[in-house]
Amino acid sequence: MKSTNTPTDTPSATPGPQLRTTDESFVRDFGTMSTFGATATGGVDRQAASPADVSQRRWFAELLESHGLRVEYDRIGNQFGLLERVPGAPYVVVGSHMDSQPTAGRFDGAYGVLAAAHAAFRLAEEWERTGDVPLFNIAVVNWFNEEGSRFVPSMMGSSVFTGKLPLEKALATLDRDGVSVQRAMEPTGFLGDGDGPTAAFCAEIHIEQGRNLENSGTTIGLVTSSWAANKYEFVVNGDQAHSGATLMEDRRDALLGASMLVVAAREIADRFPGVLHTSVGQLDVYPNSPVVVASRVSLLLDLRSADESVLTRADELLHERITEIEATARVTVERHHSHSWGVNPYQPNGVELARRCVERLGLSHADVMTVAGHDSINMKDVVPTVMLFVPSSEGISHNELEYSTDEDMLAGLSLLTEVVRGLAAGELTT
Amino acid sequence: MKSTNTPTDTPSATPGPQLRTTDESFVRDFGTMSTFGATATGGVDRQAASPADVSQRRWFAELLESHGLRVEYDRIGNQFGLLERVPGAPYVVVGSHMDSQPTAGRFDGAYGVLAAAHAAFRLAEEWERTGDVPLFNIAVVNWFNEEGSRFVPSMMGSSVFTGKLPLEKALATLDRDGVSVQRAMEPTGFLGDGDGPTAAFCAEIHIEQGRNLENSGTTIGLVTSSWAANKYEFVVNGDQAHSGATLMEDRRDALLGASMLVVAAREIADRFPGVLHTSVGQLDVYPNSPVVVASRVSLLLDLRSADESVLTRADELLHERITEIEATARVTVERHHSHSWGVNPYQPNGVELARRCVERLGLSHADVMTVAGHDSINMKDVVPTVMLFVPSSEGISHNELEYSTDEDMLAGLSLLTEVVRGLAAGELTT
Repeated sequence: MKSTNTPTDTPSATPGPQLRTTDESFVRDFGTMSTFGATATGGVDRQAASPADVSQRRWFAELLESHGLRVEYDRIGNQFGLLERVPGAPYVVVGSHMDSQPTAGRFDGAYGVLAAAHAAFRLAEEWERTGDVPLFNIAVVNWFNEEGSRFVPSMMGSSVFTGKLPLEKALATLDRDGVSVQRAMEPTGFLGDGDGPTAAFCAEIHIEQGRNLENSGTTIGLVTSSWAANKYEFVVNGDQAHSGATLMEDRRDALLGASMLVVAAREIADRFPGVLHTSVGQLDVYPNSPVVVASRVSLLLDLRSADESVLTRADELLHERITEIEATARVTVERHHSHSWGVNPYQPNGVELARRCVERLGLSHADVMTVAGHDSINMKDVVPTVMLFVPSSEGISHNELEYSTDEDMLAGLSLLTEVVRGLAAGELTT
Repeated sequence: MKSTNTPTDTPSATPGPQLRTTDESFVRDFGTMSTFGATATGGVDRQAASPADVSQRRWFAELLESHGLRVEYDRIGNQFGLLERVPGAPYVVVGSHMDSQPTAGRFDGAYGVLAAAHAAFRLAEEWERTGDVPLFNIAVVNWFNEEGSRFVPSMMGSSVFTGKLPLEKALATLDRDGVSVQRAMEPTGFLGDGDGPTAAFCAEIHIEQGRNLENSGTTIGLVTSSWAANKYEFVVNGDQAHSGATLMEDRRDALLGASMLVVAAREIADRFPGVLHTSVGQLDVYPNSPVVVASRVSLLLDLRSADESVLTRADELLHERITEIEATARVTVERHHSHSWGVNPYQPNGVELARRCVERLGLSHADVMTVAGHDSINMKDVVPTVMLFVPSSEGISHNELEYSTDEDMLAGLSLLTEVVRGLAAGELTT
C-alpha cells in the first residue's frame, strides 16, 4: 500500500524558490480538494450533483475567485473560471472533471481540474509580472458529470458543450430514483443561462489509468488518439415465475440470459488479447426477489479497442452470441445503442506542441493512446486539443487505492502550464 | 389468456341453496381481497409490511370479527382469527399468507387464508346450528412474510411461531434500505405481545404453482411431502477498476464471477432433468456503475430436489464450479448457508384423513409433492399437518398471470372445511 501524498522536493523541471511556493500551494490545494466526499480508506465518493460534489464546486469557485478568475456556469452546469486578458477573444479551455464514481480514487479528474486552475494562476501571475499579453484567454473548466455513474451517459457536460447531446435531453436524464439532472442541479445554483465561453483550443491532463507509463518509467504520456468504444444498453426480457416450483423447461429467466451475456462479453475479449476491452459494470434485476425468476434485467455493456476493425468484429460476435442466448435461455434481448466513439487522433500539431514543451522541460515522455473516455475526446472534435497523462500506480483506477505521486503531478502541472501558455500565445494558429 | 374470475355454478360437491350463498360470499370476498395492492395487469404487489399488506390485514381483521372470530397478533406479527368453542383447548391452525412478491399473482397465499376463514365461518355456523361441540378450537392464520422478498428469509412468521427462527433475529432483519422488521411493523400495530394460540394441528390449502394437477385434469392434490431445498447466500468479491482502461488480465470482476455462478446453477439443473430445480432470483452489484468493474456481488441461489442424494450431488458440483470460477474470474466467493429443509413427509395419517374427505366429496385427487416452500412445512415439524393443492393454470406463479378457477377454489374450500372439521373433531388423536 502507498502512503498518502506528502509535499516533496520540487522536480528539476520547476526550479527556483518562487515556483517552489506554487508547487506547495498546489499540493496543499490538492489535499483540501480530496477531503470532499472522502472515504475512510483514502478514496472519494463524489457522484455528480451529490452533496459532496456541490460542496467541492463551492470551494473551487472560491479558489478561482481568490485568484482573480470570474466564475460562470453554462446551462448544463459546467463550471468555468475565466481569465480574460484579451477582451472578446476566444478561450483556451483547460480542465477535467471533479465528479467521481462511488468509492473512487481522489486523482481521476480532480487532478486535471486543479492542475488547470494552477496553470492559469501561474500564467496570470506571469503575465501580470511581465506585462505579456496572450492572443487567447483562459477558461479553467470543471465539466459536469464526466463519470456518468448516477446519470448516464458519461461525459455529459462536455457532450452538451460540444453540441453532441441536446441540452434538453441531458437535463431530462433520470437517475435510478427517477430524479432528473434538472431537478438535482437546479437547487444548487449551478445551472447558468448561457453556453459558456467560446473555445479556440482545449487542453486536459489526467492520470493514465493504465500501466504503460509506470512500467516504462516515463513521466508524461502525450496522447495521440483515443481507443474506439461502443457502449450499449441491453434489456433482457423473460417471464416472472416461481423460482422453486416452475419446471426448468418452462422458465424464461432474464437473469440467466443476462449472465450469459456478461460471460460472453469476457469470452469475446479473450479472443482479441490486449486489443479489446469489454465489460458490464451495471446490471439491474427485476423484481430481484429470492423466490422469483427475474422477468427483466437491464445492463450496460462496453466494447473498446484501439482497432476499429476489431471493434466491428467484436460487435458481430456479440450479436451472434445474443442470438444464441435468446434461444438457449428463452429470453429476448433489446439493444439500445447509447453512446460510441471512434479511434480519433488528437490534432498532430497539438501533440507536437506538447512534445516541444515536454522536451524543453526535460521530462521523459512517450506517445500513448487513451482507452478511457475523457471530456477532451469530445472537445477534440470541435477545437484543436492537447491531452496529457501522468502515471497511475499499478494502473489502478476507479478504486480507492488509485495513486499518483506528487512529483508526477507537479511535473504534469509544469507541462500543462507550458502547453497552455503556448496555446494562449497562438502557437497552433501560425 | 384467461378471463377474470366470475361466479360460477356450484360444483356438485357443494350442493344446496345455503352452500350456494356461502360460495358466492367467498367469491365476493376473494374479489375484494384482490384489490389490495392490485396492479394494472391483474396481479398484486403486496410485500410484507407494505401499505397494501397493512390495509389488507386491517380489512381481513374486520372480516374475521364480523363473523365472530377474535383477532390476535403474536410478537412477529402473525395474524390470527380465533374461533374458541372449547375454552382452553388447543387449536387447529389453518391458513396461509397474504403477503406477495412484487408484481405477483392474486392467488398465491391469499387463496389459502381466505379459504381458511370461510371454512371457519362455515363450521361456526354449522356448530351454532347443530349444537355440535368440537374437541379443538380453530385459529385462522395469516402468516407474516412468507414470501421473503423484502425481508429474507421467507416463511419468517411460521419460522418464529415454530421456534426455528429466534424472534429477536427476525425482528432485526433489515430490508435493502436498512429498515428492520421491527421498525416496519411497529407503527402498524400488528406486533402483539404473546406467542399466539397453542397449535394441536395445522392445515393449509394453496395453489399448486406447478402443472401436475392441470395436466392430469385433477382437482385436488394431497401433498405427501416437500422437496428438499438448500438456499445459499453467496458474496463474490473482486476489485473495483476502470471498466475501460484496466487490462483484462488485471481485472478481478465480481460481476463476471457472479454471472458464471448463475450460468453454473442452470447447467447443474440440466444434468438432473426433472429432479433438480436451481435458481438465482436476487443479485445485487456494487458499485453498479457503467464505467466500473464491480468489486462485490451478492446473490441468493437455491437448489431444490425431491431426492436428497441429488441435492447432495448438486451441492458438490456447485462447489466444484465455484472453485473453478474463483480461479478463472480471479474472485473469491464467500458462502453463507442461509436456509434449508429436507424431503420431509407430511404425517401419513393426515394425508389419509384428507383422502377420506376428498373421496366423500367425490373430487378427483392425486398425491403430489410440494417444490415450493410453504408455512405448513414449518408447521408439520411441530404438529400433524395437512397440506392441500388446487390447480394452477399452466403452472404460472409469482407472476401477474397466475390463475385458478372459481370452481377449483370452491372445491378446495369444501375440502378444507371437511378436513378442518375432522381435525377439530379429533380424528387424528384416535
